[in-house]
Amino acid sequence: MIKIGIVGGTGYTGVELLRILATHPHAELTAITSRKEDGVPVAQMYPSLRGRVNLAFSSPDKANLNECDVVFFATPHGVAMAQAPELLANGVKVIDLAADFRLQDVAQFEKWYGMSHTCTEHLPEAVYGLPELNREQIKSARLIGNPGCYPTTMQLGFAPLLKAGVIDASNLIADCKSGVSGAGRKAEIGILFSETSDSFKAYGVSGHRHTPETIEQLQRLTSDKVGLLFTPHLVPMIRGMHSTLYAQLKDSALSMSNEALQALFENAYKDEAFVDVMPFGSHPETRSTRASNILRLALHRPGNGKTVVILVVQDNLVKGASGQAVQCMNLMFGLDETTGLNHVPINP
Amino acid sequence: MIKIGIVGGTGYTGVELLRILATHPHAELTAITSRKEDGVPVAQMYPSLRGRVNLAFSSPDKANLNECDVVFFATPHGVAMAQAPELLANGVKVIDLAADFRLQDVAQFEKWYGMSHTCTEHLPEAVYGLPELNREQIKSARLIGNPGCYPTTMQLGFAPLLKAGVIDASNLIADCKSGVSGAGRKAEIGILFSETSDSFKAYGVSGHRHTPETIEQLQRLTSDKVGLLFTPHLVPMIRGMHSTLYAQLKDSALSMSNEALQALFENAYKDEAFVDVMPFGSHPETRSTRASNILRLALHRPGNGKTVVILVVQDNLVKGASGQAVQCMNLMFGLDETTGLNHVPINP
Amino acid sequence: MIKIGIVGGTGYTGVELLRILATHPHAELTAITSRKEDGVPVAQMYPSLRGRVNLAFSSPDKANLNECDVVFFATPHGVAMAQAPELLANGVKVIDLAADFRLQDVAQFEKWYGMSHTCTEHLPEAVYGLPELNREQIKSARLIGNPGCYPTTMQLGFAPLLKAGVIDASNLIADCKSGVSGAGRKAEIGILFSETSDSFKAYGVSGHRHTPETIEQLQRLTSDKVGLLFTPHLVPMIRGMHSTLYAQLKDSALSMSNEALQALFENAYKDEAFVDVMPFGSHPETRSTRASNILRLALHRPGNGKTVVILVVQDNLVKGASGQAVQCMNLMFGLDETTGLNHVPINP
Amino acid sequence: MIKIGIVGGTGYTGVELLRILATHPHAELTAITSRKEDGVPVAQMYPSLRGRVNLAFSSPDKANLNECDVVFFATPHGVAMAQAPELLANGVKVIDLAADFRLQDVAQFEKWYGMSHTCTEHLPEAVYGLPELNREQIKSARLIGNPGCYPTTMQLGFAPLLKAGVIDASNLIADCKSGVSGAGRKAEIGILFSETSDSFKAYGVSGHRHTPETIEQLQRLTSDKVGLLFTPHLVPMIRGMHSTLYAQLKDSALSMSNEALQALFENAYKDEAFVDVMPFGSHPETRSTRASNILRLALHRPGNGKTVVILVVQDNLVKGASGQAVQCMNLMFGLDETTGLNHVPINP
Repeated sequence: MIKIGIVGGTGYTGVELLRILATHPHAELTAITSRKEDGVPVAQMYPSLRGRVNLAFSSPDKANLNECDVVFFATPHGVAMAQAPELLANGVKVIDLAADFRLQDVAQFEKWYGMSHTCTEHLPEAVYGLPELNREQIKSARLIGNPGCYPTTMQLGFAPLLKAGVIDASNLIADCKSGVSGAGRKAEIGILFSETSDSFKAYGVSGHRHTPETIEQLQRLTSDKVGLLFTPHLVPMIRGMHSTLYAQLKDSALSMSNEALQALFENAYKDEAFVDVMPFGSHPETRSTRASNILRLALHRPGNGKTVVILVVQDNLVKGASGQAVQCMNLMFGLDETTGLNHVPINP
Repeated sequence: MIKIGIVGGTGYTGVELLRILATHPHAELTAITSRKEDGVPVAQMYPSLRGRVNLAFSSPDKANLNECDVVFFATPHGVAMAQAPELLANGVKVIDLAADFRLQDVAQFEKWYGMSHTCTEHLPEAVYGLPELNREQIKSARLIGNPGCYPTTMQLGFAPLLKAGVIDASNLIADCKSGVSGAGRKAEIGILFSETSDSFKAYGVSGHRHTPETIEQLQRLTSDKVGLLFTPHLVPMIRGMHSTLYAQLKDSALSMSNEALQALFENAYKDEAFVDVMPFGSHPETRSTRASNILRLALHRPGNGKTVVILVVQDNLVKGASGQAVQCMNLMFGLDETTGLNHVPINP
Repeated sequence: MIKIGIVGGTGYTGVELLRILATHPHAELTAITSRKEDGVPVAQMYPSLRGRVNLAFSSPDKANLNECDVVFFATPHGVAMAQAPELLANGVKVIDLAADFRLQDVAQFEKWYGMSHTCTEHLPEAVYGLPELNREQIKSARLIGNPGCYPTTMQLGFAPLLKAGVIDASNLIADCKSGVSGAGRKAEIGILFSETSDSFKAYGVSGHRHTPETIEQLQRLTSDKVGLLFTPHLVPMIRGMHSTLYAQLKDSALSMSNEALQALFENAYKDEAFVDVMPFGSHPETRSTRASNILRLALHRPGNGKTVVILVVQDNLVKGASGQAVQCMNLMFGLDETTGLNHVPINP
Repeated sequence: MIKIGIVGGTGYTGVELLRILATHPHAELTAITSRKEDGVPVAQMYPSLRGRVNLAFSSPDKANLNECDVVFFATPHGVAMAQAPELLANGVKVIDLAADFRLQDVAQFEKWYGMSHTCTEHLPEAVYGLPELNREQIKSARLIGNPGCYPTTMQLGFAPLLKAGVIDASNLIADCKSGVSGAGRKAEIGILFSETSDSFKAYGVSGHRHTPETIEQLQRLTSDKVGLLFTPHLVPMIRGMHSTLYAQLKDSALSMSNEALQALFENAYKDEAFVDVMPFGSHPETRSTRASNILRLALHRPGNGKTVVILVVQDNLVKGASGQAVQCMNLMFGLDETTGLNHVPINP
């Protein structure tokens, strides 16, 4: 059994980790910390876990995280980088669901997250935890920067085209839509039911912190210079993410058939358990992935023209966060990658 | 492996059966029928099942249901009673999720469902599939009438008080609220998104077909004459049911302490895997049961007065339909009752 | 023109007052206060009011409320009673949308609201602002305690039966359901989209502060002793309230026909512009009142038995709060009661 | 008073026309037709109109539409072109909310709508009913093709840039999101609450019938060749539309300041009552236009780069359909354009 600690388990990615790990056959939940909820049984705060998780939250100083095999950070940005060094020194693996170890470019991190990076000595060994693009590195990693939800969809959607060199890398547009749970479990007016229900809006259009992370990773796939315009939107639904990606075919690729484009995706993901390439021209719905670790995508080429449209859906809390983190954990501990992640999506 | 057939798998209880059975360790899905969708892969109609269910719908005449071990009917009322005799004669067990075998009182059935009962010869052996109240009968049954979603909450909510004889059985009020999926997957104006979202209403207040079924079952628990007022409402949510039950303590029971009332429930359900008695005074939320087979309930006694209020929540498609049907199947085939039903509720 | 001040205009009842008053032909919005938003244009905080309301919030000390004709308090409990004396002394009428002047019973107020009442000298002249039951008093009032949303539905639903003396006043049950906006615009986890959407729950079942206010008012309608069990629930919708009321006919009234019961309501409200008595057996939907000052109700008598069920719907922010307050203002200033309140409900 | 007929008043654009016209000071509702609902009072079908609309639906053959001053068609495509000639011959003005008179290019109409155009003799005089771009023509028109909801946002969003010649007209991308009411009031599985709530999807990505209409109109604004990629999506909300528009600045315009871009929009719409140009960098929410005829837009230029992003919101049933139709009517009858259209948006 893998001894597991969770730091900051009171948010949505934390409770989703608990849901997944509660039925994971090799997981032994050892400690879950929350300074504020010290002593409160997890199941009191989350009645959905009554009878399934018997742990109580404990103050970080009381939890003996150094005895865990792996610690997940489901915390605000900045927490993991403070605690990772001690854990790593004690042989504990670290998976951070926040941004501390996603960006190798420290200047970008500090610009977008408004804080100094205090753990640059471990950055070089940090692995970006997107298994479909980084599997081998993840297997041997001690420290994972788990991707954000938007970047997962953008990378898996653009990757086959970028790798094949058939699109203009400098002119990528990602029009992305997220459920409200992506904003976290915070007492803020802007995400109240009465503020977000029955409405729709964009946010962060002039610049969003997920852009540099995505560009850094996409750039690894191509020698062309990557340029990305990313527009996030808020959808009145709890879970789910839909990214509508626009790419311009290079002139040299205009003669490609739609079948050839589709084949790029099918080949790229033919061995992937969690990426479902749907038939050309499909319209995936976010609900077809609800509460599962599946990401689905489909290709379109309107008017057989220059623009390829890729529709990508996932559950932002699973493949976009906690499920992906467990997928990384499975790889890091030599387990089958799908262990504990075989949930069938909930429909309706 | 249990060979399983599903008749009428295109509705919500059908697809929910598929979701549950897809990970059930002893289930082998053999046939799923739909006259209209003959030949269509299940996963084409329900992309949530892509890669998880490889069957196609087949016309009822082509499906060899007689070779199944058990057949579930997820059909409109009237279908199961037409097909059950042949199946039973062939040694196939039958679990009907519709109303054909719920009511022993044929006159009541015919009054409320507006059709003749054409299978009265099998009614006497039909068992009402509520394991918490009928477990032993279910184990040896060949034919199950699976309870409706509302009746499950009303029965499990009132039962401990009725059995103990502490409430006025003639004056029960059940103010129940259901998510829209309870109305089924039918092309009807009244359950369109734009008609039901951001609104709330009662329906069937003057009389609802779930009343006689509930009274027939509650009457088995007491020698007092049962009287029930049942008011259903429609909530703008997909899944979930919340029943607010009101019962008047008998004068002889007015001196009971709240602890004693609570103990009635805790004792009644102490060995039940799927009934969670919450602490006295709790307010269960439907989402704490979402996509799981759990039913949660909590007691209140406002002003320590004469009226006891019982709050009951469940997922109407799971404990209120398909999960309960699988729970019955497990019992009928000698499996652990919880097999394949250990889903942790989805939150948020 | 009536010079109008609003204290605390940043919440939902405040912005709804602004929406209504923006097209009221006799309203001149003079000041709107918010200590926190001092100097911020109202339309910046609420873009829905761009081009319609040109005022900015001002700090309470800067706003010259004493020059208004009437001041609305859309504030937390306790604010109006601190400021009302000075305003009244300056000849300014006061309409409080919070609870400070609803209860004549000070002990009850202090018990349920957890604060001392500091303005008991004005309580005797405070009028409970429910025009359908208190019209004449409102016309001559200087100080209004505007009813809460739940109490409005309970009073208008039970009143005709209580006045006629045909029901057991001691055994009233009100099972009420409210949209989330009723909880206000506060940064609280419990009313986040991800916490309340796609779910349903009861709250305050053991006791809710709207109970004493409702009993105090209902008691004025009958010499029988009033007993009320009130159970509030939270519905995943923004606006709307649905109250399902249960009353037991007295033995002496059991022979009444349904027509006679219906006539009690039709006579009671035949001259009321904002109360719509629907045909016997109707099922009103909350959306049929959305964004209007209409309250609709319908009678049922299941099985022609002892229990009468009254279904009542309204928009909790309009007839349940700000619309009712403007209705009171119209009466206090000798205007036609419907002035500025003729909005047609929004459907869908 | 303008005598008004509505053909096909049972859908959402029909009932929205009724809501608006019920308080329009110059409108006299004379006839509303529905073959299926002949004799049914409008307020029975739509309780929101109880006491506000006293008409009953009548069969088309009984309604004397020829005596109206104007007839609105809130019908499926194909109905208006069959009945318009007789009405026009009788001096009745016609406003069609469907597509029959939107496209001057008959071949495009027949391709996208799958029917022959049977009224081509009146097409040349048909005016596209977008007042902000076609006001003078509308004033003198007898026959209006009222724009679809998506095209209204795309045209008003791109127009100032196209007219100024600063963007590449051949590479416009419109990523648009609509509430479910845009799909109409039809008994279809795909728009059930349980199918669309808590989910998000694109549809018609490979080609949508609103594209040719939009291109035809945009082409009138520029001599450059217009190319448009339009991607519609379905949002789990009742009303509201959000279009995210992407345009590439021409090289010659790259040196333009953001202030200069903003000025293009402010100048274009400075006299428009129903177009609100928000400050540069704003994020309009659909709810800020709910139930009103306002369209709001805001400009962004991420990274001060080549791409301009225009965010446009409206209520799809008002500015996107029935409100716009009444706006046209006002112009056609010499009324102030805003008559009866001064509703303040509903918030929350």
